Amino acid sequence: MPELRKDPVVGRWVIISTERSRRPTNFIPESLAKIQTFSPFAEGREDMTPPEVYAVRPAGGKPNTPGWDVRVVPNKFPALQVEGSLDRRGEGLYDKMTGVGAHEVVIETTDPALQLADLPVEQIQKVLIAYKERMLDLKKDKRLRYVLVFKNHGAGAGATLEHTHSQIIATPIIPRMVQDELDGARRYYELKERSVFTDILDQEMSDGNNRRVISTTDRFVALAPFAPRFPFETWILPRAHRSSYHMIDDPEEFLDLARILKDTLQRLNVALDHPPYNFVLHTAPLGDDDLPYYHWHFEIMPKLTRVAGFEMGSGFYINPTPPEDAAQYLREIVALA
Amino acid sequence: MPELRKDPVVGRWVIISTERSRRPTNFIPESLAKIQTFSPFAEGREDMTPPEVYAVRPAGGKPNTPGWDVRVVPNKFPALQVEGSLDRRGEGLYDKMTGVGAHEVVIETTDPALQLADLPVEQIQKVLIAYKERMLDLKKDKRLRYVLVFKNHGAGAGATLEHTHSQIIATPIIPRMVQDELDGARRYYELKERSVFTDILDQEMSDGNNRRVISTTDRFVALAPFAPRFPFETWILPRAHRSSYHMIDDPEEFLDLARILKDTLQRLNVALDHPPYNFVLHTAPLGDDDLPYYHWHFEIMPKLTRVAGFEMGSGFYINPTPPEDAAQYLREIVALA
Repeated sequence: MPELRKDPVVGRWVIISTERSRRPTNFIPESLAKIQTFSPFAEGREDMTPPEVYAVRPAGGKPNTPGWDVRVVPNKFPALQVEGSLDRRGEGLYDKMTGVGAHEVVIETTDPALQLADLPVEQIQKVLIAYKERMLDLKKDKRLRYVLVFKNHGAGAGATLEHTHSQIIATPIIPRMVQDELDGARRYYELKERSVFTDILDQEMSDGNNRRVISTTDRFVALAPFAPRFPFETWILPRAHRSSYHMIDDPEEFLDLARILKDTLQRLNVALDHPPYNFVLHTAPLGDDDLPYYHWHFEIMPKLTRVAGFEMGSGFYINPTPPEDAAQYLREIVALA
Repeated sequence: MPELRKDPVVGRWVIISTERSRRPTNFIPESLAKIQTFSPFAEGREDMTPPEVYAVRPAGGKPNTPGWDVRVVPNKFPALQVEGSLDRRGEGLYDKMTGVGAHEVVIETTDPALQLADLPVEQIQKVLIAYKERMLDLKKDKRLRYVLVFKNHGAGAGATLEHTHSQIIATPIIPRMVQDELDGARRYYELKERSVFTDILDQEMSDGNNRRVISTTDRFVALAPFAPRFPFETWILPRAHRSSYHMIDDPEEFLDLARILKDTLQRLNVALDHPPYNFVLHTAPLGDDDLPYYHWHFEIMPKLTRVAGFEMGSGFYINPTPPEDAAQYLREIVALA
């Protein structure tokens, strides 16, 4: 069973993974790491994954058979384990708990040759709805406090399988980085009685000051944040206040989100010649559905530079591309969608 | 001039580097990145670096000429700039300041073919003393709040030059990760009236409970921390309380530290077949020399796994090697020194 352990100085939790346990000789040098091109996710190979927990099957049909558009399955090598009770224990001055949680894979298309950015917007819409449906289902499990959706695209960004997919990890604690956002946003709200996210959007969208805006749709904005950790880091934010992603209920809104996500990924592909990238979806914790001070959003991070000793030792990032420059490069790309 | 910018939600500062500014086409895919084997740091090439700020010259001799053992020079492509005043500015709701600071390179030996782990302990001792001397000198600059010493070894850990060297970045703010350690350690001290680092050492060194201890010397301990972010992450801590590295004044203590650092790096080299690694030296901020609750230490992080979307989006790390296993592998290696 995996274990969650807390650093006694900074309070940072880590997952000590047993399913993925590795001996010294099991680590493969990064330069030799290959992405697996054989796809266990392709249509007709449903028996190569654990049984599905969600699928879009337009023509009906039985679970774990062909005929799906989007399919969500448990990760075969999960970082956390669904079964078992959440036990908290001490070990002298240290704190630990059982590694209870969910780890799922969202298979974004049946076609192993396509990227997320290549999919039709209606297909991306289905993927985005799948995220919501899994959040709603995982929310019923009272052991869980948070659902993190993320994507590793390309070997350089940590993908191990080429067939396009995203991942969901649900955890019994709120991840540190999300907690930092919640704490910061709450403090701002207490001081100003306004949401910091709304203030950011107002400032970024105001005339003559929109040097960091990349594109907009009816309901969303893609922008280069003021203090990005990484070159060409891009956030997608809803223009209207909403703290939890799973509260979106209009299919049109998912379609609009699919449009701006596809457009953003395509712009990055053109500007940076198909870079590896990660994205994460930040939303309010489970059980805190409607926070006046928080705003769900996507953070997209092309993998262009290497995080090294300085960043790892300081939490400080050196970014060689000012966000105003990155936004301008991305704006100038003629939309392809 | 580089700029420091603060994220308005989480308060994280980033360095927007102008000296290292990059256009979209300037990013080299990681798989093609090469480490430079030609050494501008070799003896006789002193004119290929900016003028030295520190050197050990046993036989005397003029600065920037051959005859040195260890040499410290400003980084030719600094992330922060020494010249200029520290100006704090707002930009609407955002905060920024001029990127004032120091960025130096510690050339650890004249020989471009050696690694730090290969150097005689007396040479490593000189490197460790160089860190202290630079801290004391940078401390005089009242614009600076922190001096971070770190090392990137191997291309996989972000080194761009093969000639063995470490780096020093001095910043006008306390890095977030160090501030987190200071805050956590202070809270523990307020609660317990004891240092958390002393309690960790007591627990780790107690009989029957020392499963995470790798090695010890008269004055230092190398151990696998209870909640490591990375497989084979190893910390070196002084056994006696001291919050600031630059307060070491006994040359014997530096020699003892050189011994355990060399021994640890050699054990990692044997266990993991010469992995790329980063290390960082955490010490108290400038001007807070003597904190009862803080303990300076080294954190050594072999680069064996890739940090991907989950870690970047959550601040949560998945570690596939329990520290008790890592410590056992490293303990079982016969010391080579």
